[in-house]
Amino acid sequence: MTLTIERPFQRAPVPEEAPQTEGAAKTKELVIVNWSGDLDKVWPVLILSSTAAASGVRCRVFVTFWGLLPFVKDQKRIVGEHWMQKMLTLMQRPGIDHLKLSKMNFFGMGPWMMDTLRRKYKVAGPRELLEAATAMGVEFIPCQMTMDMFGLKREDLIDEMGEPAGAATAIEIMTEADASLFI
Amino acid sequence: MTLTIERPFQRAPVPEEAPQTEGAAKTKELVIVNWSGDLDKVWPVLILSSTAAASGVRCRVFVTFWGLLPFVKDQKRIVGEHWMQKMLTLMQRPGIDHLKLSKMNFFGMGPWMMDTLRRKYKVAGPRELLEAATAMGVEFIPCQMTMDMFGLKREDLIDEMGEPAGAATAIEIMTEADASLFI
Amino acid sequence: MTLTIERPFQRAPVPEEAPQTEGAAKTKELVIVNWSGDLDKVWPVLILSSTAAASGVRCRVFVTFWGLLPFVKDQKRIVGEHWMQKMLTLMQRPGIDHLKLSKMNFFGMGPWMMDTLRRKYKVAGPRELLEAATAMGVEFIPCQMTMDMFGLKREDLIDEMGEPAGAATAIEIMTEADASLFI
Repeated sequence: MTLTIERPFQRAPVPEEAPQTEGAAKTKELVIVNWSGDLDKVWPVLILSSTAAASGVRCRVFVTFWGLLPFVKDQKRIVGEHWMQKMLTLMQRPGIDHLKLSKMNFFGMGPWMMDTLRRKYKVAGPRELLEAATAMGVEFIPCQMTMDMFGLKREDLIDEMGEPAGAATAIEIMTEADASLFI
Repeated sequence: MTLTIERPFQRAPVPEEAPQTEGAAKTKELVIVNWSGDLDKVWPVLILSSTAAASGVRCRVFVTFWGLLPFVKDQKRIVGEHWMQKMLTLMQRPGIDHLKLSKMNFFGMGPWMMDTLRRKYKVAGPRELLEAATAMGVEFIPCQMTMDMFGLKREDLIDEMGEPAGAATAIEIMTEADASLFI
Repeated sequence: MTLTIERPFQRAPVPEEAPQTEGAAKTKELVIVNWSGDLDKVWPVLILSSTAAASGVRCRVFVTFWGLLPFVKDQKRIVGEHWMQKMLTLMQRPGIDHLKLSKMNFFGMGPWMMDTLRRKYKVAGPRELLEAATAMGVEFIPCQMTMDMFGLKREDLIDEMGEPAGAATAIEIMTEADASLFI
């Protein structure tokens, strides 16, 4: 981008990726790192990302570590090739419908109570929010390193996910965004 | 917004809410999402928010999920109407004086040791920090959805809290702030 | 809002610390608060910080609370003077080689499995990443308040750490950075 005007303008922090129509405000951007696979963390990730998309804020979610397991297709039960990988998914059942609370899980009673309360108060659950988020254009980016370590293949993950990427991509999109959260 | 100047100026990312005195630097803003109700997370939230306010940085704290329980009035013991809501506050005693550690809690011995050490080293505790933060203008915004699900009414929360708001507000203030943290 | 010609320049949000050569892009900055001492959180902190440095992004890590224990020298076993401080490091063995998982730790079997998998898939471990990060200029800043409370002296921490600082410094660097994460 070249500005043929006096100097001070060049110093103004013009965003590098700004090929916008003139006068248009830059679209706000939110980046979330979805690290945890717990119900009480995945839920805010999905509420924030779908609300962002609905508010016209571009939202990208970098999905890593425990956070990747909820994005495995629900019909998958045991994934991976190495016995350690199989054991991981045996103990942490993957899929958006099988989330545990980070505390007060009580062998599933906590999540069941949360589900009962949210229905009573008309709050959308993880599955509905995930569908809404992907439909509204939230981009979910799986972490390649996590896929390698956990033995997850692209076809194990839900179809709506984007292409796998690494930490460099995460850093690039975070430093360009208006807000970044690690959840 | 009307700009009576040539075009390039329009491209400069002038913040929309910038009715400042000329030449004055924009006040820095910090937004914290206070998600956890644990002592070892609420503490940094209160240290950061009160220090921000003391440093002239505007700080808004969006208080959600487990994080809302410490902001229930201390004299309240069981809140909510549904038995599940009552059970929640029965098991997670609300109030700023009843925080547990996320690890090494040991039925209260951990928090007691933390409290002993902080007094010895003259570090302010959660209650003092909360009073300082609200006195210095930190805005604590309760999450409406959490209030609904946990059965918390406005009068159950400490008087210093602001008006309840939702995820759209959280996103708006985060994308406008200079830094946002999910704690 | 009406802007007339000369003045607007002053209003443009020129970063205060911008004594850059003309036209040069400002170096991107990432700030991470390393709060947790768990393997599965320290790992992303080190992956993100070393990758940032390798990508030309300045990265500063504010090391606080549980997150400070992995930065104690590995040969140290029990640190602190007060018996409570000694007990803390007795129960949470410090040092980068002694990290536990936040879940599925299973008395060390979880971390051992993670270590086995990461070697199989050629993923760098915490120690290698920490060495790479410090070599590439990532700045690790220990939290003074945590050092006081946990009884950690400067010589207990690894030599590569910077000078201790407080919350005001954390807020200053976060609000100046392009992205801030609390991990």
